Amino acid sequence: MRASRPEHFDLRIEGDVAIVSLKRPERKNPLTFQSYAELRDWFRDLHYAEDVGAVVFASNGGNFSSGGDVHDIIGPLLKMDMKGLIRFTRMTGDLVKAMVNCGKPVIAAIDGVCVGAGAIIAMASDIRFASPEAKTAFLFTRVGLAACDMGACAILPRIIGQGRAADLLYSGRAMSAEEGERWGFHNRVVPAEALLAEAVSYAQRLADGPNFGHMMTKTMLAQEWSMGIEQAIEAEAQAQAICMQTGDFQRAFDAFVAKEKPVFKGD
Amino acid sequence: MRASRPEHFDLRIEGDVAIVSLKRPERKNPLTFQSYAELRDWFRDLHYAEDVGAVVFASNGGNFSSGGDVHDIIGPLLKMDMKGLIRFTRMTGDLVKAMVNCGKPVIAAIDGVCVGAGAIIAMASDIRFASPEAKTAFLFTRVGLAACDMGACAILPRIIGQGRAADLLYSGRAMSAEEGERWGFHNRVVPAEALLAEAVSYAQRLADGPNFGHMMTKTMLAQEWSMGIEQAIEAEAQAQAICMQTGDFQRAFDAFVAKEKPVFKGD
Amino acid sequence: MRASRPEHFDLRIEGDVAIVSLKRPERKNPLTFQSYAELRDWFRDLHYAEDVGAVVFASNGGNFSSGGDVHDIIGPLLKMDMKGLIRFTRMTGDLVKAMVNCGKPVIAAIDGVCVGAGAIIAMASDIRFASPEAKTAFLFTRVGLAACDMGACAILPRIIGQGRAADLLYSGRAMSAEEGERWGFHNRVVPAEALLAEAVSYAQRLADGPNFGHMMTKTMLAQEWSMGIEQAIEAEAQAQAICMQTGDFQRAFDAFVAKEKPVFKGD
Repeated sequence: MRASRPEHFDLRIEGDVAIVSLKRPERKNPLTFQSYAELRDWFRDLHYAEDVGAVVFASNGGNFSSGGDVHDIIGPLLKMDMKGLIRFTRMTGDLVKAMVNCGKPVIAAIDGVCVGAGAIIAMASDIRFASPEAKTAFLFTRVGLAACDMGACAILPRIIGQGRAADLLYSGRAMSAEEGERWGFHNRVVPAEALLAEAVSYAQRLADGPNFGHMMTKTMLAQEWSMGIEQAIEAEAQAQAICMQTGDFQRAFDAFVAKEKPVFKGD
Repeated sequence: MRASRPEHFDLRIEGDVAIVSLKRPERKNPLTFQSYAELRDWFRDLHYAEDVGAVVFASNGGNFSSGGDVHDIIGPLLKMDMKGLIRFTRMTGDLVKAMVNCGKPVIAAIDGVCVGAGAIIAMASDIRFASPEAKTAFLFTRVGLAACDMGACAILPRIIGQGRAADLLYSGRAMSAEEGERWGFHNRVVPAEALLAEAVSYAQRLADGPNFGHMMTKTMLAQEWSMGIEQAIEAEAQAQAICMQTGDFQRAFDAFVAKEKPVFKGD
Repeated sequence: MRASRPEHFDLRIEGDVAIVSLKRPERKNPLTFQSYAELRDWFRDLHYAEDVGAVVFASNGGNFSSGGDVHDIIGPLLKMDMKGLIRFTRMTGDLVKAMVNCGKPVIAAIDGVCVGAGAIIAMASDIRFASPEAKTAFLFTRVGLAACDMGACAILPRIIGQGRAADLLYSGRAMSAEEGERWGFHNRVVPAEALLAEAVSYAQRLADGPNFGHMMTKTMLAQEWSMGIEQAIEAEAQAQAICMQTGDFQRAFDAFVAKEKPVFKGD
């Protein structure tokens, strides 16, 4: 992934962390048909990558994302037939699926405006750090649509609870950074100037490994989403037994015996 | 629905909001066999209604509801055989199903006592506002029963988390307004004298539309309850594509371009 | 259960409450192959027991549990083939299944260190009280594994939300008592010296009954884990109708009419 040169979003690598952000900060980083598709493909490829251990989805110029652009996206959608519309909604949903299935922890670093599809990207991340200025709104009803967009009615309630999700989804109102922290949406609120560094530092600690373990944790968080409780326990018995055959399990034990810090290798 | 004249509960219409409340404030608004059945039928009819955009389930005389009356309901239940008992538990469950399927957001405005089936009605609403005096108790174990009543063991954990739900459900103790706000049960705590007005105002803003969108949001919140995460994302791709063919999506775009506030029509 | 004399964990009975705790406080109460197996069997037998109404899983010597011992458990695991590994992960998962299916409320009283499989036992309990010194860590990634251990990726998100669970599970960091209370993991924070007494007192109140009702509440909390919302409501209609045929329902009614406190008998 270090060699990839995306055209429609920004990417840089710091240590073992890929830092992704959207373009056009003067317009608060709207998504376009092109950036949706390129992000989807990039997260799909990430599933097979060995050279990146974690991702930070960062803000740019004081904002996270203004979501799908009204002129560039909503305008054209209004001219599409059903075949075109569902191709679009599936493409946006595929971005969330690709993030969920990429096998690496994704940390969103949310500053300023984080709305619409931008709020969805934050929601689809594993961990969320926010600046005090973060304003996150699932504002789909404000543009005449339903709030069931890219998995919001399934995922948001699991993060902040069914009642708080209903408030945000029906009204489209903004959740403040402080509300987000109280409700479990934001794992940490960090001053804007320290936000990126803190997110990258957290991501690097996860990227230090065990990467196979983290991949399995991410897989099972999604896999067990709708399993019965007994099925989930059996699924974890199998998944963890697989992890017990990795070298990193041995390395952790050896380091413990030697009273050293383990150095994980991801296999 | 504006023409409906329920016999066993109170109904009035304000703007596009239907305000429902229980009767007999001198007994803290108990439910009866008749009011259960009539509410169930009313919420079922609401599914097809076009003349109401949102519902406020209000308190009456300082209390929300004391639940199923001990003399009027528990007494007769003790004389029933299994066929009669399950007819009763299905009728009460059908009220929750009817609320979940009614297609309009329901806002509970909870003052004072809110216990038993009253707590369930609050729980089955989408949004909950409470006065500082609200006391909500799932007190089924106090009357010798299990707490699995009308969906409580499935729905309450999704609102406040599995651990807090277990405490309330096993012990039957009252949740204070403040606890409810901290835990995500109450979306807002409002002084008793402003409670109804604030709930109606919130409901009216949702009733302003987009009503088709809100109906789809409500549908999908229930529909995705037990879906896998990938199935939920595909289900939302379909549901949102349907919404993109409504006039309200066009109206929102036109209003945005004209820098006006959109006026939704619900189609 | 009063007659059982476990070899690898401590058990005593107070009133109708069984108080379980792990051994070897000088090593912070690690789990061993033997104590895993014996606890699993004990909780399985508890399903059929009539002489215990609730369980407190207590701390011992200022700590809850240090989890699977590195030397006694991880060392031998590193020498096992897949057949042996999955036999182990299934045995540990079977302890959680046995706790979930034991039919009696389990209250964890967490003081000091509560990590690894110890954190899982706390998580698998119904209710959690903690001392201010409680430190709970799902530290599986620290030993080179995934966090999907004994149901953690399914159960922890339902207690504290998907985002907070992801933070704890990926990083393996300790959750403080205060965080746990804010997040819904701890139902109550109690000074260490009062912790056990308060947990036992709470457990005794549940053990006072209705025990059949509590058993059904516990059953349905697990049973409805992955049901659709309508299926859950029907399942509760059936479960509650069964409870309406118990003597305890009649006893509660009779006590109410006589203005007395009901004395439940569990049938």
